[in-house]
Amino acid sequence: MNKIIEKGELKYMQVAEGIEQLIHEDIFKIGDKLPSVRLLSNEQGISVGTAFQAYYHLEGKGLIESRPKSGYYVRYNTRRMPGVPATIVPFVKESEVSINEMVADVYNYITADDLINFSFACPDISLLPAARINKSVVHAIRSNKNHCLHYEHLQGNVELRKQIARLCFNWGAKLTGDDIMITSGCMEAMMMCLKAVTKAGDTVAIESPTYFGIFQAMESLGLKVVEIPCDPVTGMDLAAFEKAIKKFNIKAAVVVPSFNNPTGSCMPDANKKKLVELITKYQVPLIEDDIYGELYFGKNRPRTCKTFDKEGMVLYCSSLSKSLAPGYRIGWCIGGRFLNEIRHLKSIHNLSAPTITQVAIAHFLSIGRFDYHLKQLRKSLHVQCLRYIQAISEYFPESTCTSRPEGGFVLWLELDKKIDSYKLYKEALKHHISVAPGRIFSTHPDYSHCIRISYGKPFTPDIEHGLRVLGQLVKKMSR
Amino acid sequence: MNKIIEKGELKYMQVAEGIEQLIHEDIFKIGDKLPSVRLLSNEQGISVGTAFQAYYHLEGKGLIESRPKSGYYVRYNTRRMPGVPATIVPFVKESEVSINEMVADVYNYITADDLINFSFACPDISLLPAARINKSVVHAIRSNKNHCLHYEHLQGNVELRKQIARLCFNWGAKLTGDDIMITSGCMEAMMMCLKAVTKAGDTVAIESPTYFGIFQAMESLGLKVVEIPCDPVTGMDLAAFEKAIKKFNIKAAVVVPSFNNPTGSCMPDANKKKLVELITKYQVPLIEDDIYGELYFGKNRPRTCKTFDKEGMVLYCSSLSKSLAPGYRIGWCIGGRFLNEIRHLKSIHNLSAPTITQVAIAHFLSIGRFDYHLKQLRKSLHVQCLRYIQAISEYFPESTCTSRPEGGFVLWLELDKKIDSYKLYKEALKHHISVAPGRIFSTHPDYSHCIRISYGKPFTPDIEHGLRVLGQLVKKMSR
Repeated sequence: MNKIIEKGELKYMQVAEGIEQLIHEDIFKIGDKLPSVRLLSNEQGISVGTAFQAYYHLEGKGLIESRPKSGYYVRYNTRRMPGVPATIVPFVKESEVSINEMVADVYNYITADDLINFSFACPDISLLPAARINKSVVHAIRSNKNHCLHYEHLQGNVELRKQIARLCFNWGAKLTGDDIMITSGCMEAMMMCLKAVTKAGDTVAIESPTYFGIFQAMESLGLKVVEIPCDPVTGMDLAAFEKAIKKFNIKAAVVVPSFNNPTGSCMPDANKKKLVELITKYQVPLIEDDIYGELYFGKNRPRTCKTFDKEGMVLYCSSLSKSLAPGYRIGWCIGGRFLNEIRHLKSIHNLSAPTITQVAIAHFLSIGRFDYHLKQLRKSLHVQCLRYIQAISEYFPESTCTSRPEGGFVLWLELDKKIDSYKLYKEALKHHISVAPGRIFSTHPDYSHCIRISYGKPFTPDIEHGLRVLGQLVKKMSR
Repeated sequence: MNKIIEKGELKYMQVAEGIEQLIHEDIFKIGDKLPSVRLLSNEQGISVGTAFQAYYHLEGKGLIESRPKSGYYVRYNTRRMPGVPATIVPFVKESEVSINEMVADVYNYITADDLINFSFACPDISLLPAARINKSVVHAIRSNKNHCLHYEHLQGNVELRKQIARLCFNWGAKLTGDDIMITSGCMEAMMMCLKAVTKAGDTVAIESPTYFGIFQAMESLGLKVVEIPCDPVTGMDLAAFEKAIKKFNIKAAVVVPSFNNPTGSCMPDANKKKLVELITKYQVPLIEDDIYGELYFGKNRPRTCKTFDKEGMVLYCSSLSKSLAPGYRIGWCIGGRFLNEIRHLKSIHNLSAPTITQVAIAHFLSIGRFDYHLKQLRKSLHVQCLRYIQAISEYFPESTCTSRPEGGFVLWLELDKKIDSYKLYKEALKHHISVAPGRIFSTHPDYSHCIRISYGKPFTPDIEHGLRVLGQLVKKMSR
């Protein structure tokens, strides 16, 4: 039965992809009426149900629309998408990180209910398998011999580490649970890794722009940063990185190579390989944040830098906060040759992660529901991504450039240079809308006219309203 | 009904206390036969049941024993307890903390099943209300509108903070949830507080001996320590502390004033008040670890330093790891004037604590079961404490000195000066017994002949066997 459904899925997808291609090539133009469901069914030799499914899928992506009693019409052409943001070459020098109040401001609203929240890169709860996870929680408290009351193993629950080793196999790693250290989310993993390979006063290379949490970590550890320019599609400029290594005494590098936050860029596998060769040659430990790696829209999961790491120089960090359960705070790192030091730091800091969350998630992963959930989540996110981009191209000024993420959660928008996005943030807040201002993604003001929009929430009328209001504010401010 | 039982409890306790006093004063001598239950009942005007309860209680404390078909006999006299360890004045100078492998060694066995474990200061699972907590977990996943999947508020779950403010009322604090910051256990609270008030290279005053986790925190933050001598009964020597403040440039102090780990000392309330006056006068922020404060054996809960803090100079840290659920990693701090900085540091490090554990524990606290549980736990720990001391006085060499904790979990044993307790630790491990060697509680070798014994586990034949074997090893090594 399952097999048949799967086959059916493939067929409607094939048909939908064919139609999408025709729209993209302007053979079906915007406003054109599409063949009726019956005609499509006859032409393609598929059932009426499958033909409906194909149109339904394209409608979900916002490419076509149904008009009552008339049929399906082309609504949108991906070629009409807004331009892509330019690579901004930050003024490269060593600089003390200066954390600003903006981040605290934005984060303050993390649990607010009355906001249209575009500022958190995090999945909507409706996209997560709550019932299944709850079952695993109940299983955990019933099956664990100490009722999950005892401290966990310092390195993390043994079964959970095994399950994570299995996940890592997806991107070509052959690991055992012993290679993995469980942490309270990905940021804790990053903090521990940074602490393990640097000391106060050291200089670390990072991408520009970069996730503000990484800046804050650096500042808190007394580190200096060198920002390396990044291509909005392929990520870190490796030539610029090598130059920086030669110029500065760089002690470590931090990258988010797959579906970067905030730009959405994805470093091609060949570049990842080259990056690992570089850091191995210069013996610069590389801290890799792969938190978005599983959320790809394409056919295959991108590799990781760790895939190409032969000498244990890559410290790989990830978590389930973006893909399964943000509030469970389950992260991990693969510390390579620095594992012992990382375990020591974690045990000093907060001993071990909570037991119940680890036992429950280990159970959830072991029953094999995660793969299925991920498939659904990727599909939803891809659709949301396209719908958000379409709304932005509709409501924002024409000069607005938008990234084209192939995975992850976030859109990076380049607005008119005149716009101060922190002012925009403040203004939007008055309308109960929250966005992440570009200024918080760099130590330099280069991105002051950019904003980051998370498309973690399904595209509802509320969301559309939010984007419309935002667009109006941007238009007003760019006058 | 409840009221009657409570009255009954009081009566048997009164009778038991009377007999205990007579034993203590050597009126009933060791080996003496005690009055029969019937006689006791007649003499005291109590029911036979209550008389039984009184004897049963004294038997639980190890003071008397029943001999089959003969009656109750005096088994032990608290005056025959071993001596109390001396105050050791450590060689006071500033010193780089050097963390040793010993701690990693001891901690490695945190989840081992096949050990008689005297090295963890933590309650046996059988002493914890597992079924009630599990009910609260189920309530949490059912009642939370996001199924506990969403990130929690950065400062911690609002209801949990309210409940903790209520707990703090027990020691005289008038707080609201806004004053409290939830952390992943007490050590994380301590780390955040230390980071908030010091920077690398600063000097911090600590007690001697002190919990090794505090040393490790210091080392990891690049801090220097000055160890202040402590009385085994009343805790930190305040005159020595003031002298140290004048001599060194002390930026903060860390104390465990109630039921200190490892010595078990409890600073009298008057000393706590004086300590707070001192640190306020010299403007030295005081980090107070009150993790054992609720586990008192006497009539009243000891005050905290925070009780006497008028200027927000005390950073109070605690958790539920010793009293309710070690594996839940629920800790908190009251940051006083440093709260904002602490919240910032926590959010950088791992965003927020997990949601499900916070929601569940908030529910458990709100239904009012915690007070009842604590009463039971205190009683059990008190009995265990006495039984352990008695076994030690029986099986260890006569020269062994043992602390007399009035609360908490741990006994501090001073052995023959010849004994290297790390060697003893290694030797005991061969017999599947784990103790905490004294060397890990100081940067100096002053405590190399001491060990710390946790009495968190009920006194079973296994435990008695463990103490007997330990005693034999000590005897062998002191030859």
